[in-house]
Amino acid sequence: MNITAPVPEDFELHPQLAADTIEVDRWECCRVLLMNDASYPWLILVPQRADVRELHKLFAGDLAFTTAEIVRASEAMERLFQPVKMNVAALGNQVPQLHIHVIARFADDAAWPNPVWGAAPAVPYGADDLAARVAALRGAFAG
Amino acid sequence: MNITAPVPEDFELHPQLAADTIEVDRWECCRVLLMNDASYPWLILVPQRADVRELHKLFAGDLAFTTAEIVRASEAMERLFQPVKMNVAALGNQVPQLHIHVIARFADDAAWPNPVWGAAPAVPYGADDLAARVAALRGAFAG
Repeated sequence: MNITAPVPEDFELHPQLAADTIEVDRWECCRVLLMNDASYPWLILVPQRADVRELHKLFAGDLAFTTAEIVRASEAMERLFQPVKMNVAALGNQVPQLHIHVIARFADDAAWPNPVWGAAPAVPYGADDLAARVAALRGAFAG
Repeated sequence: MNITAPVPEDFELHPQLAADTIEVDRWECCRVLLMNDASYPWLILVPQRADVRELHKLFAGDLAFTTAEIVRASEAMERLFQPVKMNVAALGNQVPQLHIHVIARFADDAAWPNPVWGAAPAVPYGADDLAARVAALRGAFAG
């Protein structure tokens, strides 16, 4: 049963998000992207709705799905990576398409205990590590 | 009608949050605090549940209320301050009690377009400004 609206044909991922990430999955509301930065397990959820920049502008049903999908992403990452803390954030000061960061944090990561943004230059995944990480995430989502 | 559990008697605001903020309101699920930093209109919502550190660990009903209260806070701040962007984040790397930042951002604020954390030392409100801001927020919440 799909109780959300279908993905609008006019939804298009913002080119900056497309450039910075690898698509991992598509859920009821959100597209699930992996940030191409091996410093942290870092997902970005993008509600597939055109022209929405703010969390509080989502329709109630989409917001409920997005919240459930944040939980789904957080739980999967927690199982997979056993982080010290999950960080969840909708900032979007620079990219004007609503997107939600879901990041697994560790006491020995490159930014701890500070937020990740601006802390260290992104470290792109090598091809094998990227394939392994995407496969692991898909497995965790399915589990 | 109150469909959430009553506030547990063992809920106690973390001392660091108590030190950094001024209480503005108490909602169904969250305590609504104003960060004592005049650089940004900055609320912190704290679900009044003991021993919860992660958003995804809230019970489903509490998560639904918390989400609705994030929307309520965001809408009120948008009406009141007309920011360029709202920033919403649950980080909690340093304070081990779940709290959600809801921050109104402006193109001329002290950190724009970067996140606010660590960007500039906090600027405590003067007494008159603090009273005015708390009153304005209470008015916006009531409106």
